[in-house]
Amino acid sequence: MWHQTTISLKVRPRGFHLVTDEIEQALPELRRVSTGLLHLLLQHTSASLTLNENADPTVRADFEAFFNRNVPENEPYYQHTYEGPDDLPAHFKSSILGVSLVLPIANGRLALGTWQGIYLGEHRNRAGRRTLIATLQGE
Amino acid sequence: MWHQTTISLKVRPRGFHLVTDEIEQALPELRRVSTGLLHLLLQHTSASLTLNENADPTVRADFEAFFNRNVPENEPYYQHTYEGPDDLPAHFKSSILGVSLVLPIANGRLALGTWQGIYLGEHRNRAGRRTLIATLQGE
Amino acid sequence: MWHQTTISLKVRPRGFHLVTDEIEQALPELRRVSTGLLHLLLQHTSASLTLNENADPTVRADFEAFFNRNVPENEPYYQHTYEGPDDLPAHFKSSILGVSLVLPIANGRLALGTWQGIYLGEHRNRAGRRTLIATLQGE
Repeated sequence: MWHQTTISLKVRPRGFHLVTDEIEQALPELRRVSTGLLHLLLQHTSASLTLNENADPTVRADFEAFFNRNVPENEPYYQHTYEGPDDLPAHFKSSILGVSLVLPIANGRLALGTWQGIYLGEHRNRAGRRTLIATLQGE
Repeated sequence: MWHQTTISLKVRPRGFHLVTDEIEQALPELRRVSTGLLHLLLQHTSASLTLNENADPTVRADFEAFFNRNVPENEPYYQHTYEGPDDLPAHFKSSILGVSLVLPIANGRLALGTWQGIYLGEHRNRAGRRTLIATLQGE
Repeated sequence: MWHQTTISLKVRPRGFHLVTDEIEQALPELRRVSTGLLHLLLQHTSASLTLNENADPTVRADFEAFFNRNVPENEPYYQHTYEGPDDLPAHFKSSILGVSLVLPIANGRLALGTWQGIYLGEHRNRAGRRTLIATLQGE
């Protein structure tokens, strides 16, 4: 079976956010798949999707601090600056972390590790709703 | 349906290049897929594939400047140096950005966001043609 | 056909390790696929999977040195520190490099480039066995 749908995530502030539950709730079709894969594509170039630690919220705060420090704003050599100082660093973070995930499905559930959750990296100061294309296939 | 083919990209200079059109033109089979996925693997370790902003060419120039600054050449602690100063940094950039993409297909077209394009990161000073394996599946 | 299995990799020290052979040997089913894809998910948040140069072991040593330097331990602004100084940097490395790969299969074999191998990045000082979910599909 194939199933494809658009998921519109609720608006979040700049930073890293755990979105595993919101994505699973938008995909009741997961339960019908005994073996398969879920593909997610975030259709944006200034946000990101990555897997990381799902328990301690300070990990997400540390992600925000680490990437802000290592992908700084306002570097004098930046050319693409007319959308604001947060824009170009957001593009870099998006490509370093990626905007797409492929996740295994086993027995109607995402087969993630115990400590793995899906992070949305919101890298703009003020962004609207972020859209994902979810493509599910399996048997 | 499954379709797999090798795409040989035209030679490009060091830097980031938009290759969405070249890839789509090599895959007329895309039009026969109503729901599916396209997988791309760049078969190299000194170039990369990533999604990012498709409109303003200064974003690509800023990518080249940012990654050159943050993944520098000629660090005294580098050991793998016999293929030239651009070689080892090219390996690092390839793994940071990745060499593989999975893209959703809807109604015979890649379902990318409005501003998303496929970047080839050419990280060597003088490279030959880069080869992609494209694997398309869907219904 | 779909085939999904869990692979428990042997324990390795901190650093980057070539694991292509170990993964292929755990998947004799690869030989039955003429065209398809293999998806690998490392079910951890402090290790990584990436493709890079498979020939010269100094590339792997240089990866370890580069990422240790650029993702340092013991930064005063880190909050998530109670699991040891190597823990939070391991989370960052895991998301920068990624924990998932999708690889094309052609004629019963992984269709990697000549110089491409699968690296396991073990980012903790003392970790146990790392678990992969392998999902193979094709015809």
